[in-house]
Amino acid sequence: MTEYVFGVDVGGTTVKMGLFSNEGELLEKWEIPTDKREKGKNILNDIAASIESKINEKGLDRSGIAGIGMGLPGPVTDDGIVRRCVNLGWGEINAEKELSKLTGLTVKSGNDANVAALGELWQGAGAGYKSIIMITLGTGVGGGIIIDGKIVYGSHGSGGEIGHFPSADDETEPCGCGNFGCLEQYASATGVVRLAGGLLRKGRKSVLKEEGLTAKAVFDAAKEGDETALEVLDMFGERLGKALAAGAIFVDPQAFIFGGGVSNAGSIVTDTVKKYYEKYAFHSVKGTDFRLARLGSDAGIYGGAMLILGINT
Amino acid sequence: MTEYVFGVDVGGTTVKMGLFSNEGELLEKWEIPTDKREKGKNILNDIAASIESKINEKGLDRSGIAGIGMGLPGPVTDDGIVRRCVNLGWGEINAEKELSKLTGLTVKSGNDANVAALGELWQGAGAGYKSIIMITLGTGVGGGIIIDGKIVYGSHGSGGEIGHFPSADDETEPCGCGNFGCLEQYASATGVVRLAGGLLRKGRKSVLKEEGLTAKAVFDAAKEGDETALEVLDMFGERLGKALAAGAIFVDPQAFIFGGGVSNAGSIVTDTVKKYYEKYAFHSVKGTDFRLARLGSDAGIYGGAMLILGINT
Repeated sequence: MTEYVFGVDVGGTTVKMGLFSNEGELLEKWEIPTDKREKGKNILNDIAASIESKINEKGLDRSGIAGIGMGLPGPVTDDGIVRRCVNLGWGEINAEKELSKLTGLTVKSGNDANVAALGELWQGAGAGYKSIIMITLGTGVGGGIIIDGKIVYGSHGSGGEIGHFPSADDETEPCGCGNFGCLEQYASATGVVRLAGGLLRKGRKSVLKEEGLTAKAVFDAAKEGDETALEVLDMFGERLGKALAAGAIFVDPQAFIFGGGVSNAGSIVTDTVKKYYEKYAFHSVKGTDFRLARLGSDAGIYGGAMLILGINT
Repeated sequence: MTEYVFGVDVGGTTVKMGLFSNEGELLEKWEIPTDKREKGKNILNDIAASIESKINEKGLDRSGIAGIGMGLPGPVTDDGIVRRCVNLGWGEINAEKELSKLTGLTVKSGNDANVAALGELWQGAGAGYKSIIMITLGTGVGGGIIIDGKIVYGSHGSGGEIGHFPSADDETEPCGCGNFGCLEQYASATGVVRLAGGLLRKGRKSVLKEEGLTAKAVFDAAKEGDETALEVLDMFGERLGKALAAGAIFVDPQAFIFGGGVSNAGSIVTDTVKKYYEKYAFHSVKGTDFRLARLGSDAGIYGGAMLILGINT
């Protein structure tokens, strides 16, 4: 019988790590820097060494460790193939197999946003649900889809890539991906600043100043009733609400869960998105639950642990 | 050991039925009329009687029958709850349980478009794939999503309701569902006729006449190079291609499969849709396979059989 599991969330700056009991209790968490030198070739070695040292420090019995679940910042297929992780410098690699070789432990991986969604489903805002769409509103827009408790990996590892939902017909500025009108251009922190900047340059009155503008400042101003900020909030909410109405006719989840920095603005965000979701949703999927994420930046390590416990239960 | 399975596809006019071997060979198919009188209360009785009579006619051993898989024209959840089938006159009902009581056999049901997708996956254009989106282009636009060989039912039974994808920001005519700009308004047979009618009323030159216009006539004219018909084909293809690009960032299937009357126009349809899919798709999901459905109106009974054989394997 196994007693422990490791959850690992690999980011561009740090690798977050957690040691969990096999019932999902987070016993300890720590992080190590992400060494991106030489195309990130040391990253998996560093993770293996950190886990090895934790095993020794705690005096854990290796046969009692169920495995390591790992979120990675790029597309990951369900057989563990990573196409490319731009943020880590990686090309195509099977990081699961590599880390398994290095540690002698079972390893299962997934895209970081998908793994975070699994974490929220398990012990966060999604507890009690089986099928959710999680939307992470940060510098970009990430997403993860869980159906019947399982991650939708996608055939190219791109399940839940919601940031690149084709969201507008008339956008003239390109998204970072090269397309025009991606959801990320409206619903990310960067997108919110872009929208506000556009209105300010048109001479719209506001307490906001274009220099040093942040999404937080826009949402704070909206809470104070600033009309330009409210207009940005509305544009943001309409694009995101409509994209989720689209998501609902594809997979019809029980709930939408909002994470990431932008969602810290709280109910002003979810209320606006929900208003437009209800406007655009097909009648049979109206009324789907909206929830704010609860695990913050720990969602990834929880999800990692669940990847292993899920495949063993 | 079981030897046989029944597949049933309940439509608004007829109920199609098939007797299959447990290896999926269609041994015999037939149909009975759909009795919609008195809110469709006789439909399940009629199906049970027809199956009973087939069992007797063939002298089948009841213990050798794995069950009955059934597609229904409305939202169906994975526990068999039908919210409403407008075409049958049904309100909320558990048709699975009812038919199981009437026949003494295991019954599993699903939405007809979802079940047809499962049929195509199993023995049609989807053979060899595990994850597909099937699009049925008929009077309306239906859809079914299969991930890892399983139907995405959706929490309200509305998984794959692609016809109501919010497809345009600027539509002024309402869809039958009450929303504006649903995919069905552009990509169904009705939608194609509507688009062509709009151009003809603007005085556009064409061999097409508005009276008695059909989608087939529009696609035939497009094949002959009629400019107005080509413009309609282009509008149709752009809306559908963009909707599938959206579907790809949600579930990232291995293939899109096109069924229904409109798809009989053949490669002119899929080529145009693919052109716009490739334009709007996120880079990681470009190149997804496009296939024409192969089972025609038998897809539903094949999928019904698969519902049963799938849950027993």
